[in-house]
Amino acid sequence: MNELEKMVLNEGSVLDNGVLKVDHFINHQVDPTLMEEIAKDFASVFQNKGITKVLTIESSGIAPALMTAKELNVPLIILKKQPSKVLYQDLFQTVVSSFTKETSYELTMAKNLLTEEDHVLIIDDFLAYGEAAAGAVRLIHMSHATVAGAGILIEKTFQGGRDKLKELGVMVYSQVRIEKMEKGNIVLAKERI
Amino acid sequence: MNELEKMVLNEGSVLDNGVLKVDHFINHQVDPTLMEEIAKDFASVFQNKGITKVLTIESSGIAPALMTAKELNVPLIILKKQPSKVLYQDLFQTVVSSFTKETSYELTMAKNLLTEEDHVLIIDDFLAYGEAAAGAVRLIHMSHATVAGAGILIEKTFQGGRDKLKELGVMVYSQVRIEKMEKGNIVLAKERI
Repeated sequence: MNELEKMVLNEGSVLDNGVLKVDHFINHQVDPTLMEEIAKDFASVFQNKGITKVLTIESSGIAPALMTAKELNVPLIILKKQPSKVLYQDLFQTVVSSFTKETSYELTMAKNLLTEEDHVLIIDDFLAYGEAAAGAVRLIHMSHATVAGAGILIEKTFQGGRDKLKELGVMVYSQVRIEKMEKGNIVLAKERI
Repeated sequence: MNELEKMVLNEGSVLDNGVLKVDHFINHQVDPTLMEEIAKDFASVFQNKGITKVLTIESSGIAPALMTAKELNVPLIILKKQPSKVLYQDLFQTVVSSFTKETSYELTMAKNLLTEEDHVLIIDDFLAYGEAAAGAVRLIHMSHATVAGAGILIEKTFQGGRDKLKELGVMVYSQVRIEKMEKGNIVLAKERI
């Protein structure tokens, strides 16, 4: 069992509305040492993929993605969830529907950040239905760059995100795979990848 | 001249609407090595302040704040800009008005993250009018913790944020201080701190 699996089982909790609460070590308070360990694991898994950029979606994915970019010695791209005033031109844009929050938003990336030479590793904190990650894949494809894979901290296997990414040709590696969760009970999947 | 000052002068640009565009090395694409240098500078400035936590506001401050927390070997707290579904209880909340975006939002922090023993270093990418940083100070004070200082990447000295924080008793250290900017022209302040 890796460090993150232990943290999720020992310190994660499932709220009444079915949300997994990992605020105190991933979202709201972040342990830099844990992020560094997570990043080293991602870097070792993806080290032979010729990664030229790491990419994440604001804001909970930024901490592990930055550390992974540091380990791989490449830049980090942070996708914005809405067109900002600063990025009003030369943008790739795609709409993402969020099942969990019952909203949709525009995911955006400047057109000049990626080229067809780039091999991009997507890093995110959660993989649920895979809507956000699929949006990131669309933006990378618009740039004619290659998606080298997706590294996920916590995957909920029962929500189908992995299959959605597989259909897009993207290999997923998750550090924690949850196959079932209900109040007071989190069950990890037996298969790691 | 430090590395960040060089980057701002060489690669930053001022848009028609007066916004400083630093997307390609701070906001949208991030250089982990630059972030590490920035963090080492903050760590050396604040090393004798007994810092127990670093705190930032999502999302552009996360990268430099995480690296600073790593250098100081303390946890990072990320303040959310609106009440999230997960954090619906036991929250400190304060309203922040954003001059630049002409909106206001709720800045929130879980009540159990800080105690009166904590000495908190605020890290953020920009200091303009100081509204967001002042909101962070209010949340830290609600916890009865101590604000050890504020470390800023880029300060616009002509917008008064430093004075606002000084009134709240907070010492500000900025790596880049811009005293004037207009299209095609960025002028740094002579005084560094």
